[in-house]
Amino acid sequence: MDALQEQVSQRLSLSSVSNHRSCEMMENSWYQRTLRLDTRTPMKAVHVIGTALKVNLDRGAPPSSRFFSVRCGPNVQFRVSPAPEAPHRPSPTVLTGNSVLLITMDHASENENDSKLSVMYYNDEEEVLGKAILHLTAVEISLDVDADRDGQVEKNNPNKGCWTWGPDGHGAVLLVNCDSDQRYLKRRDCEQSTVSTVSDLKDMSLMVLRTRGPARLPEGYKLTMHISQGDAESIRVFRSTSSEIHKNILTENVLYSTFVKQHPEVLSSEVLSQEVPYLGGVSEMNFYVEGLRFPDKDFDGLIRINLSLLEPISQGFPETPIFTDSVVFRVAPWIMTPNTLKPVEVFICSTVDNYTFLKGMKKLVQGNGYKLTVCTEYMNRGDRWMQDELEFGYIDSPHQKFPVVLDSPRDGPLRGFPYKVLLGQDFGHVTRIAEHVSSLDSFGNLEVSPPVSVNGKNYPLGRILIGVAFPTTMQGRSMTKVVQDFLWAQKVQEPIALYSDWLYVGHVDEFMTFVPAPDRKGFRVLLASPDAGYKLFRGLQIDGHGQAKMFEGLGEHEEITVNEILADKVLQEENNYVQGCIDWNRDVLKRELGLDDEDIIDLPILFKLLEDKRAVAYYPDMVNMIVLGRELGIPKPFGPLVNGRCALEAEMCSLMQTLGLSCTYIDDFASYHKMLGEVHCGSNVRREAFDVKWWNLEM
Amino acid sequence: MDALQEQVSQRLSLSSVSNHRSCEMMENSWYQRTLRLDTRTPMKAVHVIGTALKVNLDRGAPPSSRFFSVRCGPNVQFRVSPAPEAPHRPSPTVLTGNSVLLITMDHASENENDSKLSVMYYNDEEEVLGKAILHLTAVEISLDVDADRDGQVEKNNPNKGCWTWGPDGHGAVLLVNCDSDQRYLKRRDCEQSTVSTVSDLKDMSLMVLRTRGPARLPEGYKLTMHISQGDAESIRVFRSTSSEIHKNILTENVLYSTFVKQHPEVLSSEVLSQEVPYLGGVSEMNFYVEGLRFPDKDFDGLIRINLSLLEPISQGFPETPIFTDSVVFRVAPWIMTPNTLKPVEVFICSTVDNYTFLKGMKKLVQGNGYKLTVCTEYMNRGDRWMQDELEFGYIDSPHQKFPVVLDSPRDGPLRGFPYKVLLGQDFGHVTRIAEHVSSLDSFGNLEVSPPVSVNGKNYPLGRILIGVAFPTTMQGRSMTKVVQDFLWAQKVQEPIALYSDWLYVGHVDEFMTFVPAPDRKGFRVLLASPDAGYKLFRGLQIDGHGQAKMFEGLGEHEEITVNEILADKVLQEENNYVQGCIDWNRDVLKRELGLDDEDIIDLPILFKLLEDKRAVAYYPDMVNMIVLGRELGIPKPFGPLVNGRCALEAEMCSLMQTLGLSCTYIDDFASYHKMLGEVHCGSNVRREAFDVKWWNLEM
Repeated sequence: MDALQEQVSQRLSLSSVSNHRSCEMMENSWYQRTLRLDTRTPMKAVHVIGTALKVNLDRGAPPSSRFFSVRCGPNVQFRVSPAPEAPHRPSPTVLTGNSVLLITMDHASENENDSKLSVMYYNDEEEVLGKAILHLTAVEISLDVDADRDGQVEKNNPNKGCWTWGPDGHGAVLLVNCDSDQRYLKRRDCEQSTVSTVSDLKDMSLMVLRTRGPARLPEGYKLTMHISQGDAESIRVFRSTSSEIHKNILTENVLYSTFVKQHPEVLSSEVLSQEVPYLGGVSEMNFYVEGLRFPDKDFDGLIRINLSLLEPISQGFPETPIFTDSVVFRVAPWIMTPNTLKPVEVFICSTVDNYTFLKGMKKLVQGNGYKLTVCTEYMNRGDRWMQDELEFGYIDSPHQKFPVVLDSPRDGPLRGFPYKVLLGQDFGHVTRIAEHVSSLDSFGNLEVSPPVSVNGKNYPLGRILIGVAFPTTMQGRSMTKVVQDFLWAQKVQEPIALYSDWLYVGHVDEFMTFVPAPDRKGFRVLLASPDAGYKLFRGLQIDGHGQAKMFEGLGEHEEITVNEILADKVLQEENNYVQGCIDWNRDVLKRELGLDDEDIIDLPILFKLLEDKRAVAYYPDMVNMIVLGRELGIPKPFGPLVNGRCALEAEMCSLMQTLGLSCTYIDDFASYHKMLGEVHCGSNVRREAFDVKWWNLEM
Repeated sequence: MDALQEQVSQRLSLSSVSNHRSCEMMENSWYQRTLRLDTRTPMKAVHVIGTALKVNLDRGAPPSSRFFSVRCGPNVQFRVSPAPEAPHRPSPTVLTGNSVLLITMDHASENENDSKLSVMYYNDEEEVLGKAILHLTAVEISLDVDADRDGQVEKNNPNKGCWTWGPDGHGAVLLVNCDSDQRYLKRRDCEQSTVSTVSDLKDMSLMVLRTRGPARLPEGYKLTMHISQGDAESIRVFRSTSSEIHKNILTENVLYSTFVKQHPEVLSSEVLSQEVPYLGGVSEMNFYVEGLRFPDKDFDGLIRINLSLLEPISQGFPETPIFTDSVVFRVAPWIMTPNTLKPVEVFICSTVDNYTFLKGMKKLVQGNGYKLTVCTEYMNRGDRWMQDELEFGYIDSPHQKFPVVLDSPRDGPLRGFPYKVLLGQDFGHVTRIAEHVSSLDSFGNLEVSPPVSVNGKNYPLGRILIGVAFPTTMQGRSMTKVVQDFLWAQKVQEPIALYSDWLYVGHVDEFMTFVPAPDRKGFRVLLASPDAGYKLFRGLQIDGHGQAKMFEGLGEHEEITVNEILADKVLQEENNYVQGCIDWNRDVLKRELGLDDEDIIDLPILFKLLEDKRAVAYYPDMVNMIVLGRELGIPKPFGPLVNGRCALEAEMCSLMQTLGLSCTYIDDFASYHKMLGEVHCGSNVRREAFDVKWWNLEM
């Protein structure tokens, strides 16, 4: 919400609350409104059930008044303070400088001014000096939302005005309406100021104005819905005007233009305050609240909507808000899905040269019963890096949930895919625009861990991982600030920054991944390890396989023996350096994910340095794999053949077998590895959402 | 701090902490750095005391290794994990896949590589297969600040890396260096990138880098101080290069140019990272941290400074940070001073027409022993509204405290006064620039309550009060957003918004003030009250003083009798409306300051409406007073004379007398009241700071 702008409206509000303390205030304190009584003019007042009217009796008393008495109709209660010494004595009470009358009413009025209260003032001789009359109209007003997060809008939840995290928390949830339910022109729903379809309504949060009272409010009184200027940038509010709406929703037969008209916009960045009709009797009016933007550096995700009852003064004076009810929403964060979640759909690109890869992937994906979507060259324009252009995530609320693609500012030739192909009904899209991007802005450099617990702090949705340069250097590449700010602001998967600038491409997926495991924390971290690679190669040499060749069958110029690799001192030095870089990340991962060494598996992978001293994988980088349940699609490493079997594949299979995981090796050598990427870089997986609800996190 | 940018540096840091959880982490967890050992090359490592080196023994073991043994020099400790079955048996330990060696050292080295550790590997027959040697240099590094807030920089406070509120809280404090210690050109010190004088240094926070180790670090190692890009906008760091500095500080005899050279800038918005020298042996290096900006909407006030030890790789590779120590500062908020604090200095303007007022004020102020500063017409250029152009406050830290004037964006003819006159040595200046300002941006519309407690929540520094329009209307004036955001961001005097747009001038000081009281909460709220005014006038009428005249002696056309006032139905209606507006604020004040009706005193004051339906005081607005201890300087109301005494003055005196306060009536009729202001509008009071330290607040 919006600092003091917002505070202003909170201060005017019964439920003036956005933190814990205020929640308690609302429960314990009695909302009192000071009212003037006048012995010369009968007064009229509208009373809102649940509040109290407070009259300073001395103030309006005729001069020389010494005593007073109060009478009222059956729907009115009153209390005098300080309490009279003999409260049951029928005679008048002594009037003091701080004599106060508290008036409450229990039931809504059936007619305007149908209740009455009067105060008689007496002098020393108990002669009547004057009589103040108050005509009362009682109404019930409640702006209601799903503050208990069960998918239903309950009535007047006492906690609706504040938002707290956790299973015992409360406060309503709002989605950014970032999918496209448009029937004609495709664009994000939140970019247009009309409600287009029933499915569009379903992406908004229902808010109900419940009122009870006479057929009409007394002359000049009105209801107004209002928001602060800051909040107005983040939401729109629509009203449902037709009592037939619910039938229409069910039948979906209403015309588009009729539907739009039946849902006028009430509040927006242009209209911060608007009168809403009072329907009379017992009535409910439906509003739909639409989120326009995700939490970000300048937006904490909380917004407040207020409903005030205004009292007329007279022509030319602003009406006075005499009662304000308010509700708070939190905009749902964008949530990433780790490798341990069930896959739903795998995406890869088809290019002129990747038939072998495509064939291998189809067999793996479809063979295991997952949906495979191939992005054709018409759309990908030769850009095969499906991992880098986008990241799949989702947004969740008690009433609606759908996948949302985060579109990278990388914007390679594949850039049209997230918006033109993925965006659709119940498939949202969000992006951040950056002027200067580097390779570290590709989303191979954006991953998320499975759920972890770190020194007693739980991350049931895992933690986001990105790669940057050392903070100690002023050179070096990083992920652009707008994306980092966005990720950080989502809050529920608190990010960790790793060091990836040592890599030529610079993505965290080049040296690490997560696989499911039946034991321990439910997963293992796999780390590329040159030390593990050299250990394996040295073992081969000792066992007499020094002449075994890597890259066999890929053309003679590629081939190299184990002996040759081990004899290359420069390569060894480069890999010592790489191991140091990975170990640096290993230490950060252990600390920030609460891992033991036993949670980490080192994979035998060598790197080499290019001319700019940055590293690339020496042979297909097995850690850059696709994880589909217990099936792993791993870049075929083309390692030395021992007894007809690739020693690297054998080692990998043996390591994964202990976790019950099965390895499929995908030949990506020519069409990915040689272009400095592998299976993971060339694919993307949409996964099921977490069962855990983000609002149940303890923050 | 700066979202993920900052997190990046936190993640790389031992003291990677900005919240409570992380504090615990730092205390409980052992900082471990993964290190490679190699049987073919002796390794060298720098060890930082307080951390541990961790070696995966299996990784670097020669093939066929089955056992290992470890030996080390006297300054080295090690632990093997998993623990050997018979730890005291001299024979080698079985090597497993997860054999880990943890190395620590207790004392700093006297020479480079003066400690040693070696690991021997054996085969099944316990024949030696290889020996890995590690040469160690131990150093102690601690970046130190006054984290316990006692004015002294203690050594390596375990809580220096995180900031918490409260008497048991910790974390250092930083001042915005917003005064002017310049010898020549006057400007705010934080606007120039040099340290000009000793008194300039005193406004900064001392930070000490303590190191202990050999005379020089091993080849290529270096120390670097670094901050995030976000934090760099808020601070500068200078270094003190001369060991003579402390003497110079005491004598203040050093030349300006020498002094500047002795304090080079280390970090700034242009330089986020810079090497700092390692002095060798046991040494301390002093740094001075300067705050550049106050907390605001986009700045929470927290900044982090990091000191890393970098390990060289080789030419062309970025050095690896192998240890990071970091400290957190919070920039001190700007704090307002309520009427209940002791006055230090009173400011008023001299104009061609305000001799009477000046005379009255001089007598009151100087007669009670307070300093009076009169701003001459040369500076005020006819602008007499000393209250409106500026607000006095202060900033406080354990090492320094000084007054700071908040300069209003109002910018009337008096606008030069805060900067040109007030800004000086140990007198700071802060302002916010706004394009469009209204009368509500004058600081008669910015007040602060005495300390209050509201439903269990304490505000020991009181709460700020501002006036705005109803949030339910889209018309209406307000205080400009940049000032509201600034006030809100200071946090320690959480603001309350009142409704003041009903007034023509629109300032909260037109209808309320605070005076000290010997009982209850230590103060009373005084509220203007038309009802109390009418009550008084009616009493006069009944007592036979209906012909008594107001405004007697001010010229015949001004005079009006009590009877005439009471007969004016329009005036009565207007005042009923005004009473409603003030009552609305009364309800907010009671709720937000936790007040009872007994904490409020109604003053007999009438208003009238101007053509735009906004209110001004009908006679001098007694609530618009100056409060100097127990002395009140009150606008002389020129009320009806009864037995030669003004009935309004008498009533006011009687109300204040019960609180032990004495009233002096200042004639401001011609030169202030008729220009729609009074005594308070025309004066300003600088007061002593609170004894309460803001960092001791429970937030």
